[in-house]
Amino acid sequence: MSAPRIGEVRLPFDPADRVSAGVSFIGVIRSPWSPGDCPRNIGQARETGRGAQIDLDPDYAAGLRGLKTGQQIIVLYWMDRGQRDLIVQNPPHTDAPRGTFALRSPVRPNPISLAVVRITSLDGATIGIDAIDAFDGTPVLDIKPWLPGVDVPPGWRP
Amino acid sequence: MSAPRIGEVRLPFDPADRVSAGVSFIGVIRSPWSPGDCPRNIGQARETGRGAQIDLDPDYAAGLRGLKTGQQIIVLYWMDRGQRDLIVQNPPHTDAPRGTFALRSPVRPNPISLAVVRITSLDGATIGIDAIDAFDGTPVLDIKPWLPGVDVPPGWRP
Repeated sequence: MSAPRIGEVRLPFDPADRVSAGVSFIGVIRSPWSPGDCPRNIGQARETGRGAQIDLDPDYAAGLRGLKTGQQIIVLYWMDRGQRDLIVQNPPHTDAPRGTFALRSPVRPNPISLAVVRITSLDGATIGIDAIDAFDGTPVLDIKPWLPGVDVPPGWRP
Repeated sequence: MSAPRIGEVRLPFDPADRVSAGVSFIGVIRSPWSPGDCPRNIGQARETGRGAQIDLDPDYAAGLRGLKTGQQIIVLYWMDRGQRDLIVQNPPHTDAPRGTFALRSPVRPNPISLAVVRITSLDGATIGIDAIDAFDGTPVLDIKPWLPGVDVPPGWRP
């Protein structure tokens, strides 16, 4: 674990030691990214134009029935390299320290990230996607259809 | 566990028995809903006009710094009553059986749901929200700011 930056606050415990329930990894992200060389968010990942894929555990392949190429999905993944006990953070791009729940940082009590991505191909248990802001090898927790009727706040306009 | 409906497919194992990592509950949802009396999705929950709240574990209250009333957030919560081993489902509202990853059903290998909701009040570790489609007592895993620049697919229009 790195030393906290100025203004950062660490919890007096590690959430990893307070296990309430277990998650089961269902697959893995294959991406061009490694630590030190990863887009900071999915927007930056999209701008690189570099795609990625999800290698689903074949046990779960039947769960993809009904998904289609071109469709937007939500991918939940487990940021397994992040520390979990920083509750106020001071990342370089913010002007002041901010609470973890006001940030999309991978450092959080439960290191679950989500990305809205487009399916570019479907082949058995392999899902091609347009972009992802995750290291190669990141474990996947879930895939859901992105539904504008529920996932965009009512009345929101670009 | 209920018997499968026609066309449903059960996994030969229970993902709950294949634990890869642990989540730690950070709080609890207080809502008007109980089993048998819960909106089917966040859209329906919004239509009821009934708000809800998140009682965060006070240990994590500092993590809210920077969030503001009126802001949209993503709440990740743990659907702790759902079975986890149904990989093709046939819910009443679909015309044919569909893979779990093509559905927003709470029944999934990792029973993590997400809702985009608006903060209506902030008081210490208590967050008022405009709506939620979760039972009273549902454990919370994470809160993130909803960011249209990353959470809405590029080019999407209502």
